[in-house]
Amino acid sequence: MNTVSVPQVISPEHLLKHWQGHRALTRHVIEAFPEKDFFEFSIGGMRPFSKLVSELLAIGVPALKGIVNRDEQPYSEAAVENLATKAAYLQKWDEATSEINQYFKQIPIEDFEKTFNLFGQYEFPIIENIFYFIDNEIHHRGQGYVYLRALGITPPFFWTRA
Amino acid sequence: MNTVSVPQVISPEHLLKHWQGHRALTRHVIEAFPEKDFFEFSIGGMRPFSKLVSELLAIGVPALKGIVNRDEQPYSEAAVENLATKAAYLQKWDEATSEINQYFKQIPIEDFEKTFNLFGQYEFPIIENIFYFIDNEIHHRGQGYVYLRALGITPPFFWTRA
Repeated sequence: MNTVSVPQVISPEHLLKHWQGHRALTRHVIEAFPEKDFFEFSIGGMRPFSKLVSELLAIGVPALKGIVNRDEQPYSEAAVENLATKAAYLQKWDEATSEINQYFKQIPIEDFEKTFNLFGQYEFPIIENIFYFIDNEIHHRGQGYVYLRALGITPPFFWTRA
Repeated sequence: MNTVSVPQVISPEHLLKHWQGHRALTRHVIEAFPEKDFFEFSIGGMRPFSKLVSELLAIGVPALKGIVNRDEQPYSEAAVENLATKAAYLQKWDEATSEINQYFKQIPIEDFEKTFNLFGQYEFPIIENIFYFIDNEIHHRGQGYVYLRALGITPPFFWTRA
């Protein structure tokens, strides 16, 4: 059953759990924003946190679907551009949680090292694209932490994963 | 030679390369700060970027050394608290780059899943502690991006890894 030729350090199940742990923390950060500030507050001309979350939603499920179906459909935020309340974002976030579980498990172990041209634009081994999704989420969520601090709100502990 | 019992998706070499890629980006972010702002600028009562970098330096090499030697010495920023210029930070960063390479390669593949009480405080599988180092760096660096934007400085592209 083990199809890899060199010793490795993390299983797909572990990596999925790792990502979903981060997604649970991001959900708490969304919840921590006051409704208005979620859509309007920004620093230095950056996007408000709602738009950063739109990006995360436009990557997660669509990217995994693309990987599973080898469909190079371009990146688009169209499916999330009408979300107008925090509640709508949180509902979409929760739908994505189960869809990510569903699609992730459809990636055969031997495919993680294979190259796929994600969104017709990012031609990397699938494992690298998945690390990029997680890293990008941590990066933007870290920015959300600064927004919260600037608003006088204490963000959730960084090590929260549930 | 393959000592794991379930299929895995990333090798130690790949994980080290992934981390060092992130460290290269963090180095560019340090470089992007004006000297004074690196030590003084902050938002919402947060630490200036120099202090966030001190934390990263107090984790990287000391943590790996602790893992390799199974030494539970507590977390301390004492070794970096006297760094007083960006140049001193960058030199320390570069020294850490080669020490991280050196210590990381001393972790036997079968140890990544073993539990170690890092800094006498964080008792997790070694692989999870290492992911935490990387995630924590991305998190704080993302905060540095907001500082730079607030200062009117364009940060390096997030996908820069060299």
